[in-house]
Amino acid sequence: MHAPSTPTKAPTLADQRSVPAAFLDALKSRFGANCSTALVVREQHGRDESPLAAPPPAAVVFAECTADVADAVQLASEHGVPVIPFGVGSSLEGHLLAVQGGISIDLGRMNNVLRVNAEDLTVTVQAGMTRKQVNEAVKDTGLFFPIDPGADATLGGMCATRASGTNAVRYGTMRENVLALEVVTASGEVIRTGTRAKKSSAGYDLTRLMVGSEGTLGVITEVTIKLYPLPEAISAAVCSFPSIEAAVRTTIQIIQMGIPIARVELIDAHTVRMVNKHSHLTLREQPLLLMEFHGSPSGVKEQAQTVQEIAREFDGQAFEWATTPEERTRLWTARHNAYFAAIQSKPGCRAISTDTCVPISRLADCLLDSIAEADASGIPYFLVGHVGDGNFHFGYLIDPNIAQEREIAEHLNQQLVARALSLEGTCSGEHGVGLHKQDFLVTEAGAGAINMMRAIKHALDPQNIMNPGKIFKY
Amino acid sequence: MHAPSTPTKAPTLADQRSVPAAFLDALKSRFGANCSTALVVREQHGRDESPLAAPPPAAVVFAECTADVADAVQLASEHGVPVIPFGVGSSLEGHLLAVQGGISIDLGRMNNVLRVNAEDLTVTVQAGMTRKQVNEAVKDTGLFFPIDPGADATLGGMCATRASGTNAVRYGTMRENVLALEVVTASGEVIRTGTRAKKSSAGYDLTRLMVGSEGTLGVITEVTIKLYPLPEAISAAVCSFPSIEAAVRTTIQIIQMGIPIARVELIDAHTVRMVNKHSHLTLREQPLLLMEFHGSPSGVKEQAQTVQEIAREFDGQAFEWATTPEERTRLWTARHNAYFAAIQSKPGCRAISTDTCVPISRLADCLLDSIAEADASGIPYFLVGHVGDGNFHFGYLIDPNIAQEREIAEHLNQQLVARALSLEGTCSGEHGVGLHKQDFLVTEAGAGAINMMRAIKHALDPQNIMNPGKIFKY
Repeated sequence: MHAPSTPTKAPTLADQRSVPAAFLDALKSRFGANCSTALVVREQHGRDESPLAAPPPAAVVFAECTADVADAVQLASEHGVPVIPFGVGSSLEGHLLAVQGGISIDLGRMNNVLRVNAEDLTVTVQAGMTRKQVNEAVKDTGLFFPIDPGADATLGGMCATRASGTNAVRYGTMRENVLALEVVTASGEVIRTGTRAKKSSAGYDLTRLMVGSEGTLGVITEVTIKLYPLPEAISAAVCSFPSIEAAVRTTIQIIQMGIPIARVELIDAHTVRMVNKHSHLTLREQPLLLMEFHGSPSGVKEQAQTVQEIAREFDGQAFEWATTPEERTRLWTARHNAYFAAIQSKPGCRAISTDTCVPISRLADCLLDSIAEADASGIPYFLVGHVGDGNFHFGYLIDPNIAQEREIAEHLNQQLVARALSLEGTCSGEHGVGLHKQDFLVTEAGAGAINMMRAIKHALDPQNIMNPGKIFKY
Repeated sequence: MHAPSTPTKAPTLADQRSVPAAFLDALKSRFGANCSTALVVREQHGRDESPLAAPPPAAVVFAECTADVADAVQLASEHGVPVIPFGVGSSLEGHLLAVQGGISIDLGRMNNVLRVNAEDLTVTVQAGMTRKQVNEAVKDTGLFFPIDPGADATLGGMCATRASGTNAVRYGTMRENVLALEVVTASGEVIRTGTRAKKSSAGYDLTRLMVGSEGTLGVITEVTIKLYPLPEAISAAVCSFPSIEAAVRTTIQIIQMGIPIARVELIDAHTVRMVNKHSHLTLREQPLLLMEFHGSPSGVKEQAQTVQEIAREFDGQAFEWATTPEERTRLWTARHNAYFAAIQSKPGCRAISTDTCVPISRLADCLLDSIAEADASGIPYFLVGHVGDGNFHFGYLIDPNIAQEREIAEHLNQQLVARALSLEGTCSGEHGVGLHKQDFLVTEAGAGAINMMRAIKHALDPQNIMNPGKIFKY
């Protein structure tokens, strides 16, 4: 899955800042065995799930507590060395690549629950905890954390990219579900960005500024998130459609009617084929919607009935229920493995993932035109979508050794983004900007907004040491 | 209702910056009759609903479009003159006071709907439109905008203070309901902070940075907000309790069970008395919860039944239904007029409003101890609360001419805020910091976070002309 043999953008040596020996000595002296300069460790921390590559960081610090992070950042600040926070490495946009050199701070050992406040529906965890670890830790409370980007990412990483995923249509994204953060700033100071109060009008919303900042404004070390009561009843359903358009129009109507559907995922016909093969399923190989309903038993029944009626209007067929937890898990695991299923369908390939999100009324237009373009290109792809939010992903499957395939895929992505922006959408619904979408961001936000972002970055990180080179040019 | 004869903090002349004659000439030349220097107009724009006062602004510009705002700010920027955006003047925290002089920009004429996108559940309006105007404008779509801070505030003002109110327990606050803004920056440039996509990971969240920035980072000129389908069924209920504690414990259990209650408001016994008198009602003069349920007919019934059972456990009595729109409107109008009812109960008085918000599990502790203190003080007060969010307001009714009353009220507020912070809460749930809560904010956020806010302010407003003196010391 990792670093392709031919990097997309091999940063020139000029991009790399020097890492003074005195700095590395100080780091080793402070962290001992928790600081590694072994190539294999550095390489593992210098790549992610994107098709991009760069030389690895100069060292990796394994942080065990906030003080470790603060000390590492403080040393880096003294020496002007870049710092890249690392969770589990599941970024799709090159966030973890040391494009300007520097060190990686691995927060994976900071995976403890700090405070469960079940009566307030909140939990505070160290930023290196993954979403599955969080749900495991709170399972006895009758509560759960719904945000599910597919990968078992860390909460810190999910904050940094403003992640969302399959449940966002009902429960929102990290933007809506983080109450407060502890952050190590660019000078190594530890701050808190909020309280456990459900709402606040006390000053600038530093929490929301950090959420989505991709490590460029500070290292997130603690996260306080909202939890939700486990629904009394959950049911999942699969419905096949004669066309993508029919599936999308069904989704649009579900959303416009205000039905509180918990998940509504689109998978196109040939992605279903890949998923069937990979996960040993027998889903009908047509465009399908994979749905989930949460609520009281009668509420779930009511929602599902209404949705079934809507689907019928659009010739939805084979509305099948998955009522046992095992069946549901099997379906959702298959959905989450669509990416891997696709990758395996073309040995040696890499996926260039798109991430556009448009207002729901524009979804059919955006999707259908882009499918036509992708079909015409000859590049194989998978297509999955959090369609209830207007967000979908093409994964163009390219051979990283064939420059022309990459060019075609990038061109398809450019056309798609241009279309999404013309439809009042965004270039990134949930993956972030990273290295790969910087030009798109300029087009989307405009020079004025980018300058405002840049002014904030300059003010909070005057040495440009926090994950430099990501989101925009400093 | 307005400017008291004795201001709380009379700013010294040193606070006032000079407004050059050349600037006023340029302003008049650009805006003609839409620029006023008449004392009565300036005085009307230099005060709000807070008990604070300051000399009025030097001029008022009545903006009719974004270009007007941009031009006014640009002129102000050239001359280093402060700019204070004005909506309807309903701030409770002194946001509109020209404590450092400068001009007021009145956005009240910018009250047009720009784009209704009913199929996407969004609407884009000019920032001077009030929430009632918005709801009037979209009423034929079957959609509504739920955020309801009581006052018929402008959307721009509601963004600036991160307003919320009675519906926030279900629909969230302005933080969750603004998709995108158009903002005039401190240099007079016009930027957009987002798209109409429901979610985005494209760069820093400038929308959320502006929401709650109280006019200190820019003037909000356009607002794109989420709308919601009008619930199929709505029912409201009033339930009386033997004690505040019983009412609060009922609320806590409603929230912990995840019941999607749309409103749950506490009114204490003697505030009920004031409300009865003012609104000619006959509510039982005991602590009461005023509730509203939204959903499908069966969903609403189910919610209401569960809540009624919970209330019964805590000796809730006289669970009465208001099912017709007229009855509901009458009840909610009475709730919204609690402030005016209280003010009228003590002729010539002013209210010092508190705005703490705590995690729901701490609500009973916070509230009961604070009531005991208020009762012991001898200062009359009203007490209302958005208790489903852990947010409540004491209004201490003081004679502005009696310094001792003010001191006692301020002391009560200090004790309350200290208690809320010790319970992991915030000094402001929805009114903002303004002039009055700056010391509380420092205690709550800590020096590091305040310095980060200040660094952002310095970066985006290097001349400190955007509503200077608010939130924190520059």
